[in-house]
Amino acid sequence: MPSQKVPDIVVGRLPLYLRALTQMSEQGKEITSSQELGAHLGISSAQIRKDLSQFGEFGKQGTGYNIPFLIQQLQKILKLDRLWDVVLIGAGDLGTAIAHYAGFVDRGFRIVHVYDSDTQKIGQTVGKFSVKDVAQMVTDIRHEKIKVAMLAIPAAFAQEISEELVKAGIIAILCYAPTSLSVPENVQVQYIDPSLHLQHMTYYI
Amino acid sequence: MPSQKVPDIVVGRLPLYLRALTQMSEQGKEITSSQELGAHLGISSAQIRKDLSQFGEFGKQGTGYNIPFLIQQLQKILKLDRLWDVVLIGAGDLGTAIAHYAGFVDRGFRIVHVYDSDTQKIGQTVGKFSVKDVAQMVTDIRHEKIKVAMLAIPAAFAQEISEELVKAGIIAILCYAPTSLSVPENVQVQYIDPSLHLQHMTYYI
Repeated sequence: MPSQKVPDIVVGRLPLYLRALTQMSEQGKEITSSQELGAHLGISSAQIRKDLSQFGEFGKQGTGYNIPFLIQQLQKILKLDRLWDVVLIGAGDLGTAIAHYAGFVDRGFRIVHVYDSDTQKIGQTVGKFSVKDVAQMVTDIRHEKIKVAMLAIPAAFAQEISEELVKAGIIAILCYAPTSLSVPENVQVQYIDPSLHLQHMTYYI
Repeated sequence: MPSQKVPDIVVGRLPLYLRALTQMSEQGKEITSSQELGAHLGISSAQIRKDLSQFGEFGKQGTGYNIPFLIQQLQKILKLDRLWDVVLIGAGDLGTAIAHYAGFVDRGFRIVHVYDSDTQKIGQTVGKFSVKDVAQMVTDIRHEKIKVAMLAIPAAFAQEISEELVKAGIIAILCYAPTSLSVPENVQVQYIDPSLHLQHMTYYI
């Protein structure tokens, strides 16, 4: 029962729980506890129980959580009980690494097109994709009703491309460009900028 | 005046402020306000003022923030007034993209070695690096007193390699493997797992 009122920081932990539970399941485990899950993730068991209780009753006192059931429930809450088509913009080094990465499909996402503006790259093969002209991007997204995009392009072009994506119907953008995007309120953006993480850590050194 | 008591979520926003201020500075701006910075980042001006006030007085009422001064102060707080040597473990698609990425140096980090365990990759050139045997890793880290590592290896090997890194003296790990590492309390770990970000966004769709 997802509610608009669940704090975003709690929502952000659900994928972590899902990942840990999936790893446990792959190891053949069927039952876990908030203590075990917490030890695995470095999160307190009380926090995990509190987070999960926002969405319903998933465990019984004394018997713990049934792993396959909790996985299924988290997938439903996170809308991962379907496979999301994703467009990838940028076929440089990073875009190529992303296109080759085999780990998205098991977690709910399937890259369907890779775009670049560089005529040297258009038509080249990257993983199982033939790189398409970015001029084709808006038409494809509209036609195929794609909702999710990954941006692996230089920061200087990120805002302009994100505006095109939003106009075409994209409502979730994973931005690898080291910049902040300005998007309408109904559009989700998450950022991946490794330098931010490194700088966060050096504070503590 | 960094204090242990500053909440980690505040520390995590400082690199974002630094990035936005650096972009403004590159555009020739000298003065900004918490309002302008907030609009740029999608963070409230009150939040920014509160975050910065934990570390001292950086702006004057009515005149705003001097951008070069605030950049310098944030660099000092985040210990970026030096260049950190970094080892990269993993020379696959992702490791190669990371090794090619030119954006780390301006932000305080310099990759000095790239390692892999694959004999096909050892000795190959990746960017400006010759891939070294991971067997050499611990000796290099100890000898060169390196503190920061990036892990771009499969999840199955991440825990084992991180334990070797920690024994060698690494105290900050940026982990691209989609798993949680168990490390001693004095070791910082940050994770980059694009699927977590995608799953966080689909909740809201």
